Amino acid sequence: MASSGGPEIDQLIQLLARLPGLGPRSARRAVLQLIKKKEQLMIPLSAALDRAVEAVRTCEVCGNVDTRSPCAICSDPRRGETGILVVVEDVADLWALERAGVGAVRYHVLGGVLSPLDGIGPEELLLDELIARAPEFQEVVLAVNATVEGQTTAHYITDRLGPSGIKITRLAHGVPVGGELDYLDEGTLSQALKARTAL
Amino acid sequence: MASSGGPEIDQLIQLLARLPGLGPRSARRAVLQLIKKKEQLMIPLSAALDRAVEAVRTCEVCGNVDTRSPCAICSDPRRGETGILVVVEDVADLWALERAGVGAVRYHVLGGVLSPLDGIGPEELLLDELIARAPEFQEVVLAVNATVEGQTTAHYITDRLGPSGIKITRLAHGVPVGGELDYLDEGTLSQALKARTAL
Ligand SMILES: [Zn+2]
Ligand SMILES: [Zn+2]
Repeated sequence: MASSGGPEIDQLIQLLARLPGLGPRSARRAVLQLIKKKEQLMIPLSAALDRAVEAVRTCEVCGNVDTRSPCAICSDPRRGETGILVVVEDVADLWALERAGVGAVRYHVLGGVLSPLDGIGPEELLLDELIARAPEFQEVVLAVNATVEGQTTAHYITDRLGPSGIKITRLAHGVPVGGELDYLDEGTLSQALKARTAL
Repeated sequence: MASSGGPEIDQLIQLLARLPGLGPRSARRAVLQLIKKKEQLMIPLSAALDRAVEAVRTCEVCGNVDTRSPCAICSDPRRGETGILVVVEDVADLWALERAGVGAVRYHVLGGVLSPLDGIGPEELLLDELIARAPEFQEVVLAVNATVEGQTTAHYITDRLGPSGIKITRLAHGVPVGGELDYLDEGTLSQALKARTAL
């Protein structure tokens, strides 16, 4: 038994416990906090979730999440002027780069990295979409994580884009080997993009 | 800027970041998980929150949270037969004792502990309600945390209940000094209640 407050509370605990970073114990504490702060927290959260369920969608151009498609980034004409397309694994990485203020770039969210052992091949990612879209840009920056799978994915993209002659770069200084973009501080990320190197 | 997904997503992140155990970074990851699992997670969570906002209330007898008042524990006639009232600081402690299967007891949730430095005096807690209710029971078990404030609160209750002649006990073996009930394993909690000692 998760709580002693009836099935409504138990179900809320079980759903919250499935969020990353929350286990059963922290989900119980979160629910008690929600109940204690019903007016200031539980009702606003309920309303915000309702609105998000209605409004949030995946951008059909880049894979970002937003309340419109194409997303705000894809719809911003100033973003297109630099001709730079930054390829990331996940939306969390796009958000991290935006927080770092990396400049007026566009993005392509792969939705993961190649990982044959986990059954993730090119078809599971938005790779064909990237290859189709890349010729619109002067430069493609591969901002994938510095993991084995991230680097495998970078090689795959480089091979497929090679014949097109598009300039391909990768993030350079500051990305620790084996590290994940989303954990880096904003200054490091910003520097890594500025010092990108040609592949 | 918390995300790059518009105000609906930013607001959701900000609200989730106020839950215990979640900071801004884990709230962002939680929101991305919700969006990724919209059908299996986001919509059910939204519905569960709506139901909880409607249904959950505080028990007017004991301070527990439930979908009815008096709560299921206060309404269960078998709970009254043992004549034992267990006094806890928070609903989380009540839930922890119930998970430990401590037996057919009733509870009284104080809503905190005496802490003059934080401006929490007897009026801020459900202490008058406890004093009024205690004579219905043969024994009052003070299951407050083994902290200075918890013990101060126990002394206060003992003083006020003294003239009534009700048997007052406290949790004994197994509660580490300075520890909090809600962090203990279930066996320890169960033993501590069985080995309770007279004050
Ligand atoms: Zn987009
Ligand atoms: Zn009750």
